[in-house]
Amino acid sequence: MKFFAGVDGGGTTTRCVIFDQEGNISGYGKAGPANYHAAGSAVTGDSLLTALQNACATLPPGYEIEGLFLALAGVVSDKDKRIILELSQFLLQKFTINPGNIQVNHDCQAALTGATGGTSGIIVISGTGSSCYGENGQGESWMAGGWGYILDDLGSSYYLGQQALVSCVQCYDGRGPFTILLREILHKLGLQRVEELMHWLYFPTLDRAAVAGLAPLVIQAAEADDSIAQNIVKKGARELAVMVKAVAEKLNMRAAEIKISTAGGLVNEAAYYRRAFQATLGEMLPEALLINPFLPPVIGAALLGYRQAKGIISPEILAKLNCQQKLLD
Amino acid sequence: MKFFAGVDGGGTTTRCVIFDQEGNISGYGKAGPANYHAAGSAVTGDSLLTALQNACATLPPGYEIEGLFLALAGVVSDKDKRIILELSQFLLQKFTINPGNIQVNHDCQAALTGATGGTSGIIVISGTGSSCYGENGQGESWMAGGWGYILDDLGSSYYLGQQALVSCVQCYDGRGPFTILLREILHKLGLQRVEELMHWLYFPTLDRAAVAGLAPLVIQAAEADDSIAQNIVKKGARELAVMVKAVAEKLNMRAAEIKISTAGGLVNEAAYYRRAFQATLGEMLPEALLINPFLPPVIGAALLGYRQAKGIISPEILAKLNCQQKLLD
Repeated sequence: MKFFAGVDGGGTTTRCVIFDQEGNISGYGKAGPANYHAAGSAVTGDSLLTALQNACATLPPGYEIEGLFLALAGVVSDKDKRIILELSQFLLQKFTINPGNIQVNHDCQAALTGATGGTSGIIVISGTGSSCYGENGQGESWMAGGWGYILDDLGSSYYLGQQALVSCVQCYDGRGPFTILLREILHKLGLQRVEELMHWLYFPTLDRAAVAGLAPLVIQAAEADDSIAQNIVKKGARELAVMVKAVAEKLNMRAAEIKISTAGGLVNEAAYYRRAFQATLGEMLPEALLINPFLPPVIGAALLGYRQAKGIISPEILAKLNCQQKLLD
Repeated sequence: MKFFAGVDGGGTTTRCVIFDQEGNISGYGKAGPANYHAAGSAVTGDSLLTALQNACATLPPGYEIEGLFLALAGVVSDKDKRIILELSQFLLQKFTINPGNIQVNHDCQAALTGATGGTSGIIVISGTGSSCYGENGQGESWMAGGWGYILDDLGSSYYLGQQALVSCVQCYDGRGPFTILLREILHKLGLQRVEELMHWLYFPTLDRAAVAGLAPLVIQAAEADDSIAQNIVKKGARELAVMVKAVAEKLNMRAAEIKISTAGGLVNEAAYYRRAFQATLGEMLPEALLINPFLPPVIGAALLGYRQAKGIISPEILAKLNCQQKLLD
């Protein structure tokens, strides 16, 4: 029997979904991180293996995976893709996979395909990091943002946390105005003095997730009317909208194509932040339509595996998958 | 015979100067890095030992070091000072030093003391990183900036390089306007595609000095009329002036006290950048006076060792040291 598989690998979790020719979800598995830049090749390979093993456990004997799509965070350049393709060759020995239909790309493509069901649109991802990716009706794609925390991640949880820390030290040393973030952040981190922030931040090494973990404090302070926190939120939301606008312009998208979906904990779960994004998007790109994702990224990845093998994605498959998506956690 | 010693330890080089009671420079030594956060305690201890050994080599037998001041980059909090003081106890066994007169502080204090000869004023440091430190006539001191590259280093070479890279990726992905920096930076780094910047920047790990090494390109592009590069320079210079203003305000300095001196390769050696700083300083703090440093930071450190032992610094000592400073490289 023939199946189609997708892997969505991120900085902390890797998911795998497998469905059959009718769109019945037949397998689902999870594993650890699969961003090979951050976690290394060995861990990434291990996560791919484990996620696939867990998903294949429920397949019938004699199964065959007709198409496999690996959607992985940190896969940006052609060099990244080559490295991951080589790395994943060992999967052919462990599973029955059509070797001609293995594809690798960044995780944004799978998130967009899931969100729109494979039609044109733009996805904005804002969790620990941030990026934006779009596809138009002419088969063209473009990405903005996603250049990592030193140059980018604008509008992400990391950005909110980092900007909050900047506001704290500048408030303390006299360059910036008062903000309740200073008290709140020291309290949350259990620190007595501002100078101790440097130890927390730099030693032994920068923990980006810990900085991103300050984002909820920023949202709270903004809700409590702290104008500095409100500015940080506004700037972050604006940066996300700037990414969307850049992608829409690069792809010469028609108004009907500018369906925007979002992924990632910050923009999807923090209502205050999502409203700020929606407001600035309305100003900057009035023709854009914010939609709820039709399917989660991991099913988007499996759909890309399906499309690689079959050429197209039928509405029946999409509808069937949509009914089952609640099965996944 | 009695001597006074100062150590100026930075991210790459540590210097030590020793002078006698009349202000004759009797010893000078150099060694490797002494920022214990970056280089580690072992390397820092080794650099302190080597710099002192080299400086003591030319002292007469039976010498005694009456006062020793260790001015080290990265010493910010009281915890840092305690750690360095403990670490430097082993020096007492190797050299004849009055144990009651060993002091530790950040490198800015020594730079200021050298620059002004121990009177009130403000020093702005802008090399790979940046910070600003001032002392007023009432014995109060304040520091702004210097919170490390994740939160600060505004107006430093690292900042210029990082902002240039941000401009490149945003120019490329459609968020920002055209800049010749994109071509110039790829060319300088020997890269074909913008995506390769990420490998260069993040793998295996961030090289801040390499990012700071792009600063001269930014200055060149600004001189060649690239408006993006000019904006980066303007923003950077402004950030330095903001630090100065914050320090002057926190210390309630009188106009006569606001003598500003500078240290670090960027603000001291890049004439275009220095002019930009001077211009924005003139706008933001018209009562400030930009002065040339009277003595280099390492002699400033030795002066602090002298003051610790003797209580005051006489004009004769200052004048004598000033005549000899060309002996140091």
